[in-house]
Amino acid sequence: MATAAPETRVQTKMSAQLTSPRRDGCSQLRVALFGAGRMGQRHAENLVPLPGGILTWVCDVDRAAAAALAEKYGCRASDQPQEVLASADCDAVIIASPTDTHMELMVAAARAGKPILCEKPLDIDSKRVVAGREELAGFDVLIQMGFNRRFDPGHRALAEAVRAGEVGNLELCLITSRDPAPPSRDYLARAGGLFRDMMIHDFDMMRFISGQEAVTVAATGGALFSNDARAVGDIDTAAVTLTLGSGAICVINCSRRAVYGHDQRIEAFGEKGMLVSTNHTVHGLERYAADRTGARAPLISVSRDRYRQAYTNELAEFLDAVREGRRPTVSFEDAYRALLIADAAERSLREGALVRLDRNVC
Amino acid sequence: MATAAPETRVQTKMSAQLTSPRRDGCSQLRVALFGAGRMGQRHAENLVPLPGGILTWVCDVDRAAAAALAEKYGCRASDQPQEVLASADCDAVIIASPTDTHMELMVAAARAGKPILCEKPLDIDSKRVVAGREELAGFDVLIQMGFNRRFDPGHRALAEAVRAGEVGNLELCLITSRDPAPPSRDYLARAGGLFRDMMIHDFDMMRFISGQEAVTVAATGGALFSNDARAVGDIDTAAVTLTLGSGAICVINCSRRAVYGHDQRIEAFGEKGMLVSTNHTVHGLERYAADRTGARAPLISVSRDRYRQAYTNELAEFLDAVREGRRPTVSFEDAYRALLIADAAERSLREGALVRLDRNVC
Amino acid sequence: MATAAPETRVQTKMSAQLTSPRRDGCSQLRVALFGAGRMGQRHAENLVPLPGGILTWVCDVDRAAAAALAEKYGCRASDQPQEVLASADCDAVIIASPTDTHMELMVAAARAGKPILCEKPLDIDSKRVVAGREELAGFDVLIQMGFNRRFDPGHRALAEAVRAGEVGNLELCLITSRDPAPPSRDYLARAGGLFRDMMIHDFDMMRFISGQEAVTVAATGGALFSNDARAVGDIDTAAVTLTLGSGAICVINCSRRAVYGHDQRIEAFGEKGMLVSTNHTVHGLERYAADRTGARAPLISVSRDRYRQAYTNELAEFLDAVREGRRPTVSFEDAYRALLIADAAERSLREGALVRLDRNVC
Amino acid sequence: MATAAPETRVQTKMSAQLTSPRRDGCSQLRVALFGAGRMGQRHAENLVPLPGGILTWVCDVDRAAAAALAEKYGCRASDQPQEVLASADCDAVIIASPTDTHMELMVAAARAGKPILCEKPLDIDSKRVVAGREELAGFDVLIQMGFNRRFDPGHRALAEAVRAGEVGNLELCLITSRDPAPPSRDYLARAGGLFRDMMIHDFDMMRFISGQEAVTVAATGGALFSNDARAVGDIDTAAVTLTLGSGAICVINCSRRAVYGHDQRIEAFGEKGMLVSTNHTVHGLERYAADRTGARAPLISVSRDRYRQAYTNELAEFLDAVREGRRPTVSFEDAYRALLIADAAERSLREGALVRLDRNVC
Repeated sequence: MATAAPETRVQTKMSAQLTSPRRDGCSQLRVALFGAGRMGQRHAENLVPLPGGILTWVCDVDRAAAAALAEKYGCRASDQPQEVLASADCDAVIIASPTDTHMELMVAAARAGKPILCEKPLDIDSKRVVAGREELAGFDVLIQMGFNRRFDPGHRALAEAVRAGEVGNLELCLITSRDPAPPSRDYLARAGGLFRDMMIHDFDMMRFISGQEAVTVAATGGALFSNDARAVGDIDTAAVTLTLGSGAICVINCSRRAVYGHDQRIEAFGEKGMLVSTNHTVHGLERYAADRTGARAPLISVSRDRYRQAYTNELAEFLDAVREGRRPTVSFEDAYRALLIADAAERSLREGALVRLDRNVC
Repeated sequence: MATAAPETRVQTKMSAQLTSPRRDGCSQLRVALFGAGRMGQRHAENLVPLPGGILTWVCDVDRAAAAALAEKYGCRASDQPQEVLASADCDAVIIASPTDTHMELMVAAARAGKPILCEKPLDIDSKRVVAGREELAGFDVLIQMGFNRRFDPGHRALAEAVRAGEVGNLELCLITSRDPAPPSRDYLARAGGLFRDMMIHDFDMMRFISGQEAVTVAATGGALFSNDARAVGDIDTAAVTLTLGSGAICVINCSRRAVYGHDQRIEAFGEKGMLVSTNHTVHGLERYAADRTGARAPLISVSRDRYRQAYTNELAEFLDAVREGRRPTVSFEDAYRALLIADAAERSLREGALVRLDRNVC
Repeated sequence: MATAAPETRVQTKMSAQLTSPRRDGCSQLRVALFGAGRMGQRHAENLVPLPGGILTWVCDVDRAAAAALAEKYGCRASDQPQEVLASADCDAVIIASPTDTHMELMVAAARAGKPILCEKPLDIDSKRVVAGREELAGFDVLIQMGFNRRFDPGHRALAEAVRAGEVGNLELCLITSRDPAPPSRDYLARAGGLFRDMMIHDFDMMRFISGQEAVTVAATGGALFSNDARAVGDIDTAAVTLTLGSGAICVINCSRRAVYGHDQRIEAFGEKGMLVSTNHTVHGLERYAADRTGARAPLISVSRDRYRQAYTNELAEFLDAVREGRRPTVSFEDAYRALLIADAAERSLREGALVRLDRNVC
Repeated sequence: MATAAPETRVQTKMSAQLTSPRRDGCSQLRVALFGAGRMGQRHAENLVPLPGGILTWVCDVDRAAAAALAEKYGCRASDQPQEVLASADCDAVIIASPTDTHMELMVAAARAGKPILCEKPLDIDSKRVVAGREELAGFDVLIQMGFNRRFDPGHRALAEAVRAGEVGNLELCLITSRDPAPPSRDYLARAGGLFRDMMIHDFDMMRFISGQEAVTVAATGGALFSNDARAVGDIDTAAVTLTLGSGAICVINCSRRAVYGHDQRIEAFGEKGMLVSTNHTVHGLERYAADRTGARAPLISVSRDRYRQAYTNELAEFLDAVREGRRPTVSFEDAYRALLIADAAERSLREGALVRLDRNVC
């Protein structure tokens, strides 16, 4: 049927035909990394202790950056993606390059038949996403998107408990998503806006937890404290209300700055009770003094530490999925749907109106 | 200026002219209670241990109910409001009669010059409220409205800390408001809808905490589980997003049923941090077992217990305000503004659109 | 058998013969209060809202104090215990007079056949206790001792859960018992020492929770901060380790001063898990700032507030037990055993040695 | 003075003379590991991500075990300690061999001038410890003992806050130390008893936090649940009370089994308040249902996970101390003093008496 979702077709083929990409009997996948920047370095570091993979290539247009990272991990460097993709010791790729190269590199890797772990977001230009999506639908390749929060142990346990029926029918889902401090003005200028850059994680969480699509989106927000956000036409504080197919309501609140650290909580409420994924403190010390009791240590304020376990689990899951030829936990379509919600949220904010999403899926 | 808010005029007069209503040197106010039902009984019971007041009358159209309650407290009974208001031993009145009698009794008491503590809501018929409000503007009398949550020690400490600048500029205010179980279908049929009956407390909390008025209101909701709510055309679950004058965003989520008890939390977030007024468990026992740790006792599920201290504090504050001739903590205008927000929320829900409130105040 | 514990004999007679002390069909007991001081006032106040009792007498050697309290509650005053005990409107007595009058008043009330609620401790002079105990054994009267903590909802839920087997065999019981601030030097001088005045509550808790007697007692302690305690030869900080018949270990730590309020926690640990009765904060506000998260309000530091519910429940239980002619929840023997442990702790501290209790019971 | 503690002499020399053991300008220390068992494997794994060290040797009497581990990390294997200690690429050693080889290997390494990180305990035979201690006093070498809990972020923050005066004078220190499940009977038979094998960590914590020595030790305990412990003459549950030089009291309670996971809390109480190092749950999910609220995930029950960060920090600190030629954080003397307390606790338990420690230090 012509209107079948591309995801379905891709996955069907994959499940049926995908075979282990490494045929020499060794269980360790040879991984090529695209992008030697902050996220690339993090992935390289996380790969080391994992038994299932070994870093063989670092590829970056900045040849020196690639070389420096490659030397640290004893592997090869390149500034030519095609060289890497064509090489014999590349079983899978991690794409952590600048956002506007994601689609192009994914298509190249897919053409070479390499399983892909790609950082979010797909792209901030929806047209490029739509075009790339059609192209990718023609390939039979595993694509896992880097929504690392799905691998956070607490968030994941919450999602699994919801899906196991622990709260019965889900009626309310509240997500608090506040980062310690806003990024630089430069970053903000290129990030595609708060909804696409930051709240997209939460849109994905909503889909992950509920197993449902958003039907309506109503956004409000403003630049309440950040001159940088205001200067680039972005906001720093927002609340978005989504209604889901079942009638459940999801409310997400978001801030670019929380002085007490990463405040990222999820609350799922339903007929049988409530589940809450709580915050993480830097350590377990509590203080009692005359004017207050039980004051805990600050929340973790380093993003790398807050989601350290999540990043490791994400990478391990990717290696396992590749080796076992099974569906990725976070698909291309998941990232695409989250982006559609972000687009709708932006439209809602701009128009001061409720946006219906059900007819929006092209 | 002719369009000055009635509140202002009333209060100005009151501050200037109001003298102690009891001139015989005794500090104990003689209180008449209108309404011998559930709320009336609660107020009578709470009055006993307070040194500042003594119950002298119980008045109810159900003469037998009035007599029974009066006997218990050793005071007089009546079914004639005018008899009570004209009596020498009535220094102040508590109105806890059915909602549709509130406006009429307030006007009668105001005419008799008696300070009033009146249960919320004013009325569910906005026309009657508007008419009564104009009439009351002509009297110089203290009216305190029964928004008991303003007197809950945790909520109050939060509001005071916000106003003392502890979080700096308030940017986000999140209110969770879930009752243990829905009321009867009969009650629901007469309650005026979830926004006027239940969330009105939260609209008042928002105003109390922020010291601001709502500028826009966007509501969503549905009857997700209660056949009774559906049958009477009401909803049982809702989320309302308000924007305030400063740009701050307030999100309220509400459910008529939480199996784990009264879930009523408030979270105020701003540039300097966050304040949270948390829930109350029935006692302080925590359990550790193989499959879970730190399981606390259930939340309080009896409304009277959850807000016991709040009701007592409310009554004590009323007696103090009367005696000292000062402004009430919750004025008629406060109740009126909360009702305007409830009306706007209902319109937003019905029309699926954002409602602007700033021009709505007549 | 000649050596049967007096408790057993008393209780047997009581269960068999005790009839309702009020025979006129009215369910409201007429209560006489001995002692118009701090504890007497507290009991009088707590009695008012209870449907089962009414205050009819206040008796104090300070006739003016008795009269003042009696006037407040509309009852009679006396400075003659015999007048009160002989009066027709005295169905039960509360003894809240100075400690060294407890035994004498209990014997007088027992002789008059009046059920007794007596404040702890029995007496700080063990000889007087032993003598009085023998005398009381000859009477068939209900005596409930004022160990109010048995009626604290959290502590009680813990004890009930332990006895219901929730932790399986009890292996460790840890009790933290710290008061906000030390009492005056005058009070300390007459209090009988920290073990008899303060930790006696915890000895009772240990017996209440475990249902066992102490076999050995090892105490350590010192006057670490209080010049007043040192001046009167008392200590301000102590730890006592008890072993019970089952081999379970109970450790109690105690301080006369905790700047953050009443710190009174109980932890019961066994083969199936752990139960913890936690502390109470003055309200439910939590604060999050740059340097700390989740700082709660201070713990309650007013003793009357910390155990408000416990005192009310204690009094209600006394009235019920009297009316129903059943065993009191805290018997004379309970208080006696707790005192034996306090005596043993003091001996252990003095001698720097372990004291065996099993042969100590005379 | 002839009786100066050996620690002092060693350290003085060390501070003055110790130079970086690696003179070739490279900052990466070449580390030899003794012991290829459970703890050896853990240290090898933790060493990998640390920039300051590289594993060059694995040495074990079981040649095959050494070879297997060496292969995994690409280094050399040996069953001859002297070969390793004499090799050019050994800048420092980690001793994780069986306990009864610790002293001998330390002396050998000291003789070879290699800085040492040695697992606890020193030995369970006190004579061997005393003899080895004298021998080691003649060498000028850095010895860091493996009391990993000093490096746990929460425990460490507590100790630093106590030493910074946050609670003022320390008056009470309570340590709860419960492992998820008892080790095998074989392990218990060789472990030297609960005090030397398990509670020794807590004796060290007491010294670390208070900065004081124990003056008296009073122990109680029994085999309350473990047939294995009973069979080998050991106990499974214990409480030890220590008094310190300042008069402060430390109470440690210990169990070999806690069904809810690692329960390892420390509480420091003093004139200005209290500090508590709390437990760690496996993730941050909390559950609310009709019968309980806020039930958290179980505590971590895998020892390696509970102290993962501590082990890494311990190793990093060792590498730093060696490189910078400074005092180790946990010295030989620290381990020796903890062992003296364990010996005293065992004597106290056996004799049912208080043991004074101040004259015990030989």
